[in-house]
Amino acid sequence: MKRGTSRDIRTANRYEVLRQIIAASPTSRQELAAATGLSLATVATLVGELLDLHMITEVGFEDSAGGRPRGLVAVNASGGALIGVDIAETYVHVELFDLALNVLARAAENMRPGESRPEQVVGHVAAAAGSVVAQAGVEAARVLGVGVSVPGQVDRATGVSAYAPNWDWHDVPLLDLLSEHIAYPLYLDNPLRAGAVAELWFGAARGHANAVVVNLGTGVGAGLVLGGGLHRGVSNSAGEWGHTTLVLDGRPCRCGNHGCVETYVGAPGIMQNLRELSPHSPLLHPDDQTATIDALAAGIAAQDPDAVGAVRETARYLGAGIANLVNLVNPEVVVLSSWVAARLGEPLLEEVREAVARHALQRPLAASRIVLSPIPTDPACLGAATFALEGALQSVGQRGVRRTAPARVRSRIAPAP
Amino acid sequence: MKRGTSRDIRTANRYEVLRQIIAASPTSRQELAAATGLSLATVATLVGELLDLHMITEVGFEDSAGGRPRGLVAVNASGGALIGVDIAETYVHVELFDLALNVLARAAENMRPGESRPEQVVGHVAAAAGSVVAQAGVEAARVLGVGVSVPGQVDRATGVSAYAPNWDWHDVPLLDLLSEHIAYPLYLDNPLRAGAVAELWFGAARGHANAVVVNLGTGVGAGLVLGGGLHRGVSNSAGEWGHTTLVLDGRPCRCGNHGCVETYVGAPGIMQNLRELSPHSPLLHPDDQTATIDALAAGIAAQDPDAVGAVRETARYLGAGIANLVNLVNPEVVVLSSWVAARLGEPLLEEVREAVARHALQRPLAASRIVLSPIPTDPACLGAATFALEGALQSVGQRGVRRTAPARVRSRIAPAP
Ligand SMILES: [Zn+2]
Ligand SMILES: [Zn+2]
Repeated sequence: MKRGTSRDIRTANRYEVLRQIIAASPTSRQELAAATGLSLATVATLVGELLDLHMITEVGFEDSAGGRPRGLVAVNASGGALIGVDIAETYVHVELFDLALNVLARAAENMRPGESRPEQVVGHVAAAAGSVVAQAGVEAARVLGVGVSVPGQVDRATGVSAYAPNWDWHDVPLLDLLSEHIAYPLYLDNPLRAGAVAELWFGAARGHANAVVVNLGTGVGAGLVLGGGLHRGVSNSAGEWGHTTLVLDGRPCRCGNHGCVETYVGAPGIMQNLRELSPHSPLLHPDDQTATIDALAAGIAAQDPDAVGAVRETARYLGAGIANLVNLVNPEVVVLSSWVAARLGEPLLEEVREAVARHALQRPLAASRIVLSPIPTDPACLGAATFALEGALQSVGQRGVRRTAPARVRSRIAPAP
Repeated sequence: MKRGTSRDIRTANRYEVLRQIIAASPTSRQELAAATGLSLATVATLVGELLDLHMITEVGFEDSAGGRPRGLVAVNASGGALIGVDIAETYVHVELFDLALNVLARAAENMRPGESRPEQVVGHVAAAAGSVVAQAGVEAARVLGVGVSVPGQVDRATGVSAYAPNWDWHDVPLLDLLSEHIAYPLYLDNPLRAGAVAELWFGAARGHANAVVVNLGTGVGAGLVLGGGLHRGVSNSAGEWGHTTLVLDGRPCRCGNHGCVETYVGAPGIMQNLRELSPHSPLLHPDDQTATIDALAAGIAAQDPDAVGAVRETARYLGAGIANLVNLVNPEVVVLSSWVAARLGEPLLEEVREAVARHALQRPLAASRIVLSPIPTDPACLGAATFALEGALQSVGQRGVRRTAPARVRSRIAPAP
């Protein structure tokens, strides 16, 4: 049985202290103790560890009223670099971050329809990762790790994509394939968890023990933050809210079930909502999800009745599905994330809030807020980079334990030996 | 932000060690360390605390091959008594347990239809609680506490029934009312959490970090065990799976929503499934849920086509709803609990397993088992008594902190001053 251990607590406290320093640099140990609820002694120990790792630095003193001057620390932005990789159905985004999680470089590769073999995808990732390291001019030895987000179900421990429905991948050893090109430590997970950890560290879930991050893209799912950390489930496949039944015997889903949430609120589902309301709407771009969602966004702004109707209908399904999360999980905050949420924005949010209020029980409804993600960039890249940061923090005192790529082939973006 | 603290860990470890001792008395510190994964030093400390509380006793030594004889400990069944109260829609069950959670006495009171005022319900609880103490001949001073399970949403900290849909209670100060009759420490929660904690301590969830206990009665819900403990949510209302939408715009529900899981798989929903299949079925007892469920159970055994059809139709809904839990939570085990599950038993379980397999994703499905609750008695009574046990364990080293009833009025079942 997996229980919380003292080591888990220490790691969680280390995360919390670094999160707080990133959020409010410079800061003192006293402020950190007040903000985190940890004792000053615990904070001092954790700050010492982060100083040893060169993740933070001493930056002087502030006067405290009548007392001794207090030492100030700040995140050491140049103390390392982190790479986040977002592998999606139609593109690969790669971003390189400093330790304050500022983006230093970006690269994107588009994937053509049908380009779905693992080797093809890995080639795009390697090219984009090489590009960001070269662009940023970062010394290879300073890259602490590469986090990779891939859709579907992931075995984190082995770095295997167990099932990616968009490409029908089964048990693809993605990290082994990537390690032939990339010699940094590699961390694999999926966009649900990447989005959730990004919100937990840098977004709307920060400071909340219980939060749900609803990922609205081509695929749909929910990252669950429970008890202050990610809930992964027993086989790291928790959060498949997109494949929960909302309309029994409803629309067929690519997972084999009928009436899944995703078939009504994923980008193709939204296109279907529009098609059912207005089959010949000029907003509909039959082979282009992105163009259709953009047209809907523009249409709502212009009060186009097709656009208003389709967004309202989408919100009707989405509100019922989110009410299910509110009633079941009882979170403090529900965050709408990913590109569909970003593009449909406030008008979608307002309709969703009304729809959730029609379906949810009063007590959990009153306890929860529904917000748009405040993260301005690709949350899956940011979250994937955060996994690399967490990996580096977790390895304190147990070096060699974190998953390091075997680096069988030296690539052009490998660190110097 | 609520994070795990060292104190939480110590409390959880104390629970784990006592669970293990109750499961396998007598046992040695060495066996406890092996079974729990805790260090021998930690186990020795926790065993010492439990000995000080007289919850366990030293019961001799066993030879260890070649080494020093090992001290054995066992649960001290007579070291205290616990009372569990299950307030349901039509009855109050009260059971008195020893510290090994053996039932020493039982009392039941039936509530007539319309008998729904808090004072009436409290009167039944007080009468039944007085009865079990008298029956068992337990010294009042040995009663460590009374756990109370009441349907609906509960504010644990204040002991208030925030919302009980069956009686349309809003913000009823139930523990204050009970404390006028009962002077033991009182602990309030709902049947979802009582059922889950009973499975976690004594049933099918023991040893599992992630489990879902599906409560099938008149009302329906799910107790969530996540990360080794109960998941309560931010306002202690997590688990309202019975009020998640399964059939958008489906049957009207007493919560105001339509198509809730409960309207298809709660006892009245099962009656409706039967009515829709066979409006004049002799199995249908229009005003008696219990009689109808009993008739269905007998009917399945006799291969009655109405009964087989109604159970299959119920399993179709229940399987889709449980698949939602499997996909979202990714548990190791799903436990079917409460009186409807107990009466329909194996035939329902088999149909449900098939239905879940039709709806759930392969990876979380493969990781989870679906079982009937192995607890032979009322799981809400057992779970409520377990809350009282947890309360006593949690109060170690912080006496006076646990919620103790104000005991404004001395009743006949109060402990001697
Ligand atoms: Zn699906
Ligand atoms: Zn309902």
